[in-house]
This record gives sequence, C-alpha cells and structure tokens, in this order.
Amino acid sequence: MRMYDLIKKKRDGLVLTDEEIRSFVFGYRDGTVPDYQAAAMCMAIYFRGMNADETASLTFAIRDSGEKLSFPNIDGLRVDKHSTGGVGDKTSLVVAPIVASLGCKVAKMSGRGLGHTGGTVDKLESIEGMRVEMDTDEFERIVNETGICIVGQTQSLAPADKKLYALRDVTATVDSMPLIVSSIMGKKLAADDDCIVLDVKTGSGSFMKTVEDSTRLAEMMVDIGKKAGKKTLALITDMDVPLGYAIGNSLEVIEAVDTLNGHGPSDLTEVCLTLASRMLHLAGHGTKKECEDAAREAISSGKALEALVKMVKAQGGNEKWILDTSLFPKAPFRLDVLSPADGYVTRVDTEGYGVASLLLGAGRNTKDDTIDYSAGIMLAKKTGDAVRRGDVIATLYASDEAKLAAAEKKLLSSTEFGPAAPEARPLILNEVE
Amino acid sequence: MRMYDLIKKKRDGLVLTDEEIRSFVFGYRDGTVPDYQAAAMCMAIYFRGMNADETASLTFAIRDSGEKLSFPNIDGLRVDKHSTGGVGDKTSLVVAPIVASLGCKVAKMSGRGLGHTGGTVDKLESIEGMRVEMDTDEFERIVNETGICIVGQTQSLAPADKKLYALRDVTATVDSMPLIVSSIMGKKLAADDDCIVLDVKTGSGSFMKTVEDSTRLAEMMVDIGKKAGKKTLALITDMDVPLGYAIGNSLEVIEAVDTLNGHGPSDLTEVCLTLASRMLHLAGHGTKKECEDAAREAISSGKALEALVKMVKAQGGNEKWILDTSLFPKAPFRLDVLSPADGYVTRVDTEGYGVASLLLGAGRNTKDDTIDYSAGIMLAKKTGDAVRRGDVIATLYASDEAKLAAAEKKLLSSTEFGPAAPEARPLILNEVE
Repeated sequence: MRMYDLIKKKRDGLVLTDEEIRSFVFGYRDGTVPDYQAAAMCMAIYFRGMNADETASLTFAIRDSGEKLSFPNIDGLRVDKHSTGGVGDKTSLVVAPIVASLGCKVAKMSGRGLGHTGGTVDKLESIEGMRVEMDTDEFERIVNETGICIVGQTQSLAPADKKLYALRDVTATVDSMPLIVSSIMGKKLAADDDCIVLDVKTGSGSFMKTVEDSTRLAEMMVDIGKKAGKKTLALITDMDVPLGYAIGNSLEVIEAVDTLNGHGPSDLTEVCLTLASRMLHLAGHGTKKECEDAAREAISSGKALEALVKMVKAQGGNEKWILDTSLFPKAPFRLDVLSPADGYVTRVDTEGYGVASLLLGAGRNTKDDTIDYSAGIMLAKKTGDAVRRGDVIATLYASDEAKLAAAEKKLLSSTEFGPAAPEARPLILNEVE
Repeated sequence: MRMYDLIKKKRDGLVLTDEEIRSFVFGYRDGTVPDYQAAAMCMAIYFRGMNADETASLTFAIRDSGEKLSFPNIDGLRVDKHSTGGVGDKTSLVVAPIVASLGCKVAKMSGRGLGHTGGTVDKLESIEGMRVEMDTDEFERIVNETGICIVGQTQSLAPADKKLYALRDVTATVDSMPLIVSSIMGKKLAADDDCIVLDVKTGSGSFMKTVEDSTRLAEMMVDIGKKAGKKTLALITDMDVPLGYAIGNSLEVIEAVDTLNGHGPSDLTEVCLTLASRMLHLAGHGTKKECEDAAREAISSGKALEALVKMVKAQGGNEKWILDTSLFPKAPFRLDVLSPADGYVTRVDTEGYGVASLLLGAGRNTKDDTIDYSAGIMLAKKTGDAVRRGDVIATLYASDEAKLAAAEKKLLSSTEFGPAAPEARPLILNEVE
C-alpha cells in the first residue's frame, strides 16, 4: 500500500478504507511514512473531510497505536469526563470527587496545559507534595480505596496522536473536524473507561466557536464512543466567558474547593452538577434528575469534599491545604485592573484572558516552561456585569512584578464595554447522546 | 515571516504576497522551511489555486532560486521552444536546426527523460561521441559558430524547482496548474532566452488531457513569460497520438533526420514547421506565413540538415551517422505486433505507448537507470488507420529478448480497435499569444 496512492485518493475526495487508514497511522508512528507525506495527507483531510466510518477508523487506529490500558483490579464502573479545553476550567476537580463519593470509580489520566488552556495535572501539582506519576499497582489501589486518582498521561498512550498532533500544529491542519475527533477520542478510548461524558466547550475561549460546530463535533465523538462499546454522552457548554472567577493553578484549586464546600460561583456549580449527573446517569445511578439531586447532596453533605481530601492524601499531597485553602502560598505581586468605562462588560475574549494568565506565568508557552502555581487572575466582573469607571474588574497575581503590565494590557484589550447588558446565554447549550 | 502563517493563509483561500512566496521558496531551498511544511503548502495550493500575480511570484522566485544564466557572448536573438512533454516528441531535433539555419540562436538546455516521456539530451546521446556537457565558453562558441548547441541542464539552474518537484512527486501535488506553470516557466526563464515558444501537448500522452486545460495552462505561461519581458507564444498541439512513428532514442533521431531531409511523417513535419515558424516570427523574421515558408525552404534547400550536422560535429558527435542513418546500431531483437481485429485503430493510449517503450529499455524508471539507445517502437498504424487482423501495427526493438513480451502486451492493451474510423482531430488545436 503506497502512501502516495492514499494521499491522492483522499485528495480526489474518495473514501479511504479501514486498512488504508491503519496503514497511514501505523506507518507514520513507525517512521516508514515520512512527515511530508503525513502533512500532505492531513491537509487533504482538512479540505476533503472524512465520513463517519473513516473518522472511526482513524480514531481506532490512533487508539491502537500504543499501549491499551486496562485496570482489571479496579472494582466497579470506571467513569470519566473529558473537556475539549477551556480557560479557567476546573470542573474535573469538582465532578470527579462528587461521582467518586457516590460509588463511581474515576481513574483519570489527564494532560498538562499548553498555551492558553490549563491542565488538571498542573493544577493538582500546586498542592504541596502531590504526586501525579505512579505505577499501575498504586494507581489501582488508590482508585479502589478512595474512588479517585488523577495522574499524568503516560507516553505510551496513543503515540501516533502525539506525533500527528505535533505535525498538525506546525502545518495549519489542527482545525479539521475528523482530525480533532480522532485525536480526542483515540486517546480517550485507549484509557478504556466504561462511561465517558464529553464536555464540548464553545465560544471565544475554545476550539469551537459556534454551537453548531460544537454539536457536530459532539455528535461525531459520541457516535465513535458508542461504536467502541462505551456509554458516551456529550454536553455543549459555554466558554464565551471563563468558568468561575479564577484562572491560574492554585487559584482554580481554591475555587474548586469552595465549590465542593457549597459556595462556589453559580456558573461553575451548575456546570459541575450537570456534568456529574450525566456521569452518574451513564453509570446507571438513576434518571438525570435523580443523579443531579444526588450530586447536589454529595456537596451539601460534605461527602464530595471528603473524597477529594482522601485522594489528595493518597497521592502524597498535603490535605490540610484542602481543608484550609488559606495555606496555599500567595503570589507576592498583585495588580487591580480597573474599568476604563461606565456601563456593562459586553463581551470578553476568553482566549485573551487565557493568554493574560500565561503572561503572568500560570501556563506554558512551550513544553519545557515551568509553571508559577500562584500566578493568575481573579475576575471581579464578567460579561453582563455593570461597571463604573475605576471599578476593579480583575486582580492579577504574579511572582514577577514585571509581568503585570503586559497581562493588564492583554486583559483590557480582551474586554469590551458598552452601554447595555448583552443578552444572557445559557451555560448548557446542548446535549448529545 | 512564519511558514505556519503562510500555509494557514493559503489554506484559508487568501492571496499570498510576493514577499511571502519568495520567503517560502527560498526558505525551502535553504532548508529553513522543512519538507512537511512545504508539502502542506503544496497541498493547500492544490486545493485553493493561485491567482495570476501569485503564480508569477512563485515562478520568479523559482527562477531566482539559483544561478541566472546569461550568455553575453552569444550574438543575436536567442530563441527556444519548450514542450510540456509527450511521447515520441522529437520536435526539438527538427525545429532547432531549422531556425538556427535562418539566423536565430538556439542555446538550449534540455532535461533528461524520466518515466514515459523521453528527453532530447538522451536522444542526442544515441549519436556516437556526442557530448552534452561543457563549460559556458565552449557552449557560447558553438552557438555562435553553428547557431545551435543543446546541452543538459546544470544543477544550479532553479534548484528550488528540483526540490519542490521531487516533493510534489511523492505527495500527490504534481497536477496543480500554478505549480506546473511555475515549475516550467521558472526553469525556462532562468535560461534567459529572448523568445520562447511553448508547445503545450494535449491528450492521452500528456499532463493535460483536454484542450481547455491546455489552453488555460498556455495562457498562464504566456502571461508570465511576457511579465518577465520575454516574447512568448504557445501552441496547443495534439498528443492523443504519438507524434511521428518512432518512439525511442536513436529511432527518433533517425525520424528527425528523415524530416529534415524532407520525407518525414506528415504530422511531425506539420507540427515542426508551425513551431519553427512561430519561433522565427517572435524573433522578427516576418509574418507567421512568411516564417512558415522560410522554414519549409530551410528543409527543402538542405540548410536545416546542414545546421544539425554542424552542431553534432561541434559537440563531438559522429556527423556521418546523421548523413547516413543506417550507421546507427540496430537492436538485436525485434517483434512485430499484429492487429487482433479487422477495422480501424480507434484510439491509442499514448502514455501506454510511452510505458511500452520504457519496458523495452528506451527510458528510465528511476534517475539512475541506464538507457538502451536502440530500443523502442516503430509504429505502422496509428489512430484512424484501417487494419486487417494480422497486419503489423508496430515493431518493437530491444537488446533483451525477454522484454519484448511485456511491451507487446502493454502496446496491445493501449490500442483500441473498432468498425469505423474516428473523427480526425487537428494537430494544432489552439494558439495563445
């Protein structure tokens, strides 16, 4: 099977067979298909797209390109939630303890942050002592004992995806629906959970800018999850505005703990309860309504917070920081960003907020950057809020005073003001199952 | 200027600037733009195309990517003819001597054959002693003395084209109009002729399968030639049927000599006279009609043949072989291919005939193959000819008897027979100036 013929076939709008797609993916992983042919193929896929069967074949080939995880020693159903990535998205830190406290098992492998979106593993590492790398025996033991364990992704998981993503990133072929779907689901399916809830973020802070695109992406992913024999469901949630008020690693952990204590921001609380209810529902814990009630009860009873405390302790973290979040170190420098106008915040460029947080030291520009865990942004005003000139709209935190000015500039240029409040938009925009 | 941004811009259907295109071409030549980004760009160009300005910029960047030839010591106007490549196309061997005998200078750099199309330089090397590599001084001297010299292309001519073509060849991005135009014209313009006649071959034996595509290609090339300040004209000529009857190196030289002797095949003669007349016309030798008469006279008077003889001698070749073509070595093995049917030859797949010739040893599959100069095909019947079952339709020549059977099979499968003669198609299908 010549790679040239496969490129030409896709270029000409024909449908690739499962065997042809596997030959491309495994050949690229092994180096027998060179980068330049893979790049031409990705661009041809960008223009021609892939049908449902091709997308499934590509996803399964990526899944099968490396080690397939299995955790035979974990008791009970393994459920997971996967977000397509957003700014200030700390939902994993809230929903995993909720569902674990209700008997589901969350054995979660999570990525690190890159660019303007943060990673759950980085956020956890802002807790003193936290270990996110361990062997399978320990991982299984912690999941069985506490219901939940969150670790970094192993290198051997879906290696074809790592290579393909790195190539797409430099050849302008990232934003292709079948390539996005196969990358997300290929990795996800390799982790072999029983139930998967996908959180497809939509709006200025995410990949997908419209509800229509997000719904299409969700449909493709749910379809493939089911084809792979997994219970799968997707929520389309808003990312036109950051979720909650905190952006930055320890700031987000603190906000997640506040939410598990029952006094988190209402938008974050609503999204987390909905996500958790769907995970419980897929795992057979009752109707969506029943599951949402159960999730709410897990927070009010303190059971969910207790699950997080157990997990942190089991992973070597200082659980006192969870019980008293004032113990998290504070960034030495702060700056209040003031509103330049009277009126309302009419729009924020959420990706711009993510970049501002990156400028403060809270994220990575390149894989090798180190993270300043206490750096970040606490928003005071979000889209729809009334402001007067001089009001604090956000407070910036950094360990390097010199970083504040650039972040302030970016944050202000990412915020629009006007005389009237914009129409409110629902947090849960759609559901696909 | 980041290559990523240029790929994305083209991918999104925007127009690249001259500066951006030069940065791509020179960066690729220098290796600062990696193969995979160039491959993604070529595929994006394949899908999005390029407008006239972009195509001109790409052409001029390729032209400027290496040594720009100039021959200050050659007296008079330099004219050239360039064919887009066909099967049995020996027109250069006929038209160059015609126009040289009439005072034009033909200082020709020609490629070698690859795949099913032959190269003029290979054909010349079938003549004993012929040298097609020499330094500039000798090249200029021979052109001045004999009016004509034909040598192989130097490696330093348009190096970006060599690299790009090799990449396109393995990434299914060869058949893109702007990429074809820029490749042909970039090299051509680097040779700095004053007048260029383009012979755009059309039909089953060439790149362009329809007159419409060929005309579009011709218009783009003529436009760019003029933009570069060159007198440029294009003829769209038929390549649905091989030109003349000979396919293979020495067989084609013999047929070209026959044509210069005034008894060549009528189709070859007509195309050569038309091409030669346009070269002379561009060089200011009168109207097209006057130039065609002059070309005819150059043949009938023997002046054109004399020019070829002089050139061969000056380039070290044994000119006796031109004066008596029976001196060319004959292939030791031959096979007559017989018609399997009564009726007419209704269609030939000219590319298939080229492949049959390749199978006999007359061409190269890869750059390193050696050529069997006496191998090839002499056609006896072409499209439109009446045949009876058992008639010889072609004779195959090879130095290796084992090669005859596969070539016979290929030739027969490339020939269609039917009860009625097909409509004749003109040889000169269009003209663009």
